[in-house]
Amino acid sequence: MPEVRELQAGLLHVHIQHTSASLTLNENASPDVRIDFESWFSRTVPEGPQHWHHTLEGPDDMPAHIKASLLGPSLTLPIREGRFALGTWQGIYLCEHRDRAAGRTLIVTAFGESG
Amino acid sequence: MPEVRELQAGLLHVHIQHTSASLTLNENASPDVRIDFESWFSRTVPEGPQHWHHTLEGPDDMPAHIKASLLGPSLTLPIREGRFALGTWQGIYLCEHRDRAAGRTLIVTAFGESG
Amino acid sequence: MPEVRELQAGLLHVHIQHTSASLTLNENASPDVRIDFESWFSRTVPEGPQHWHHTLEGPDDMPAHIKASLLGPSLTLPIREGRFALGTWQGIYLCEHRDRAAGRTLIVTAFGESG
Repeated sequence: MPEVRELQAGLLHVHIQHTSASLTLNENASPDVRIDFESWFSRTVPEGPQHWHHTLEGPDDMPAHIKASLLGPSLTLPIREGRFALGTWQGIYLCEHRDRAAGRTLIVTAFGESG
Repeated sequence: MPEVRELQAGLLHVHIQHTSASLTLNENASPDVRIDFESWFSRTVPEGPQHWHHTLEGPDDMPAHIKASLLGPSLTLPIREGRFALGTWQGIYLCEHRDRAAGRTLIVTAFGESG
Repeated sequence: MPEVRELQAGLLHVHIQHTSASLTLNENASPDVRIDFESWFSRTVPEGPQHWHHTLEGPDDMPAHIKASLLGPSLTLPIREGRFALGTWQGIYLCEHRDRAAGRTLIVTAFGESG
């Protein structure tokens, strides 16, 4: 597999191997954006046994599954001249939707044309 | 196009050619997860003519369009050594958002490096 | 990079370099669908300072970030015989989530096998 810095034009695919965490792009400047992200998702996909059948793994488990699918398990990022061609404010968010989790595994796949 | 089992490292792209069904990855063990999925989406994107202008195709049509875009029309899955490199609990959900639908068409594209 | 019309089988990746606009596929026939899209997202991710910490860039800014991640910053579209292999009703939505924005930049990457 090529390295990102060798690629003139290509894509990098990042996949998270979990169903209660997700990947998205969003503003990477103000930390308030991450706080508001967290609170909107907590309000919109609330905990509480009245909402869910699947509660065996704890009150945060089923909301985590919903949030994971809303944001998605993978990102495909454009590469140009050996760098990610993201917008100025775009940063990668690894969204942890459980209260506690023992590490997360990512699978990264690069492809494209070298110079 | 290569077959998945021939690829040492690659990606499989699955696309659903519809605007009222979607693809996502989520937990494929407990069937309760799918029930809770369905009920959260039905609460959050409700039917009822007071919510929508586009009601000509039935009360379930416009909610189906919203749900389809929230979850997305495609998945890109990593392949390693001829197999999908998904997490233990990750299964593919084909989400049918209409009450009735006459079959759905998928377009599958594989690419990568063979061994 | 190949042109779409040269590709027998391939994919086109379209990426938007912003955190307050997004790309999705949805019904491109009735304009009511776009009106209902807009109103569901406005209800579900409301403006109003009581909901958000990040308000410096205006009341529409933080809702725009949430909407952008719910819909996602990129699309990967299948190509067959030099054309997009989309469903009859699938059209590309470029979703502008700010009240005003000074243009948006897309990065497009095509790859696949020519005939």
